[in-house]
Amino acid sequence: MKTETTIHGLAASLQAARAARKSIGFVPTMGNLHQGHLNLVREAKKLCDVVVVSIFVNPIQFGEGEDFESYPRTLEQDSHLLADVGCDIIFAPTVEQMYGKQPRLTNITVGGITNDLCGQSRPGHFDGVAVVVTKLFNIVQPNFAFFGQKDYQQLAVIRQFVKDLNIPVEVIGVPIARAEDGLALSSRNGYLTEDQRKIAPTIYQSLKQAEKELHAGHSLSDVLQSIKTQLTAAGFVVDYVEARQPNLQPIEIFNQDIVLFVAAKLGSTRLIDNLQVQFKA
Amino acid sequence: MKTETTIHGLAASLQAARAARKSIGFVPTMGNLHQGHLNLVREAKKLCDVVVVSIFVNPIQFGEGEDFESYPRTLEQDSHLLADVGCDIIFAPTVEQMYGKQPRLTNITVGGITNDLCGQSRPGHFDGVAVVVTKLFNIVQPNFAFFGQKDYQQLAVIRQFVKDLNIPVEVIGVPIARAEDGLALSSRNGYLTEDQRKIAPTIYQSLKQAEKELHAGHSLSDVLQSIKTQLTAAGFVVDYVEARQPNLQPIEIFNQDIVLFVAAKLGSTRLIDNLQVQFKA
Repeated sequence: MKTETTIHGLAASLQAARAARKSIGFVPTMGNLHQGHLNLVREAKKLCDVVVVSIFVNPIQFGEGEDFESYPRTLEQDSHLLADVGCDIIFAPTVEQMYGKQPRLTNITVGGITNDLCGQSRPGHFDGVAVVVTKLFNIVQPNFAFFGQKDYQQLAVIRQFVKDLNIPVEVIGVPIARAEDGLALSSRNGYLTEDQRKIAPTIYQSLKQAEKELHAGHSLSDVLQSIKTQLTAAGFVVDYVEARQPNLQPIEIFNQDIVLFVAAKLGSTRLIDNLQVQFKA
Repeated sequence: MKTETTIHGLAASLQAARAARKSIGFVPTMGNLHQGHLNLVREAKKLCDVVVVSIFVNPIQFGEGEDFESYPRTLEQDSHLLADVGCDIIFAPTVEQMYGKQPRLTNITVGGITNDLCGQSRPGHFDGVAVVVTKLFNIVQPNFAFFGQKDYQQLAVIRQFVKDLNIPVEVIGVPIARAEDGLALSSRNGYLTEDQRKIAPTIYQSLKQAEKELHAGHSLSDVLQSIKTQLTAAGFVVDYVEARQPNLQPIEIFNQDIVLFVAAKLGSTRLIDNLQVQFKA
């Protein structure tokens, strides 16, 4: 496994693979890796000849007051984990390598699907994601790129701009990896105190409970209210609890497959999760 | 020479060249080709193994009341001209092929350098250019792309987003092709009446006159005013006459290389031109 920190170095490392028309798989991350990320790498290994993992804490997707400065940088530990799952190349550029010294004038916006859910409380976040992912796609030029379904809205945004801009990459969504107690794996779980960590699985429990209630015929609005009540009772400050169609369009009644979305804070740590619920006619 | 009208067809046509690692040159056009376009193709032929020319009148770069509907579509004549200069593949997609049936949610904006000059009177124009050129780059995946310096601001915008987004294409600017009387070649020249066509070279004459005056020590503001006066006297309605640094940043005094920009209307036809003026210390 090689580690490259420059765009030129990465291009040189990939040259032979490209010339041999090998398939390149790409997993963009911000590091501080957990089993969720490693699952993405495992999926990439199944489909691709060469797997590149980027580790880059992207400043422009963090808002004011968010955790850009304190976001954990754990490259050495990440490298060991990636070597174990067969990653071929780590791309770990500096901010200057990615954004240069001169100001960036270009922005990419994805309308509609970024206006609510996480977009509402994180203005500019998805623009920052769209710009960095586009840059990374152009730098790595992968055949396949792998993203977790935990960041469901992010995945939808990426699929949208890839389609709209004809980016020659196939985007693969990988199911959420969870701890044994159901908590969706996230780098931000590391911010939780021991007590908060015990409460955190309430999110998943409330989503699974909601799924049962929906299949038992409860109304969608009652079920969403019930999730909110459970989370608030457990000590969360709820940001949103919503149901959407799989393409993120609104839905009022449970009459097709839907996705339930939760974002809620425990102390200063914001957690998100989602659950796809099948409609059984 | 092949003509492809679909993205899949183009990919198939380019597959062998890509597999053989041949260099691909790309000339994006809106058709109705003149010697300016053909010069771009000639430059591409010098540098590249395979040359692709796209002919696509891009709806999203036209504003309300602009000439999208009436823009000349002359594919048969264009094909003959392109065959003569050695174009290998014409890519002539429909609007639906480029933009699909579902609404596009993604936009690309380039700040700063699009706010004035042509950006001021054509809101959204450069966003439309950035989106379509990015799409075409992703579809054609060329090594080199060729643009005329007549659309100087457009070229600067393209260079900017290519750099900001790490698009793996080398952008080449090609000098303005002019008629014998100095008029910059443009598809829109075809809209001019016989009388207007006789007046149109005044733009270039006033720019060359300005160059002389600058080298004779006249002030930049006087020279710009003199261009305006000449154009207005000749019957133009001036949109702007401006001097800029080559990177489009403002400049007040002629103390370095500059570019003079003109946009002016003859009747309903808007003409643009520019002249790079060297500073001789």
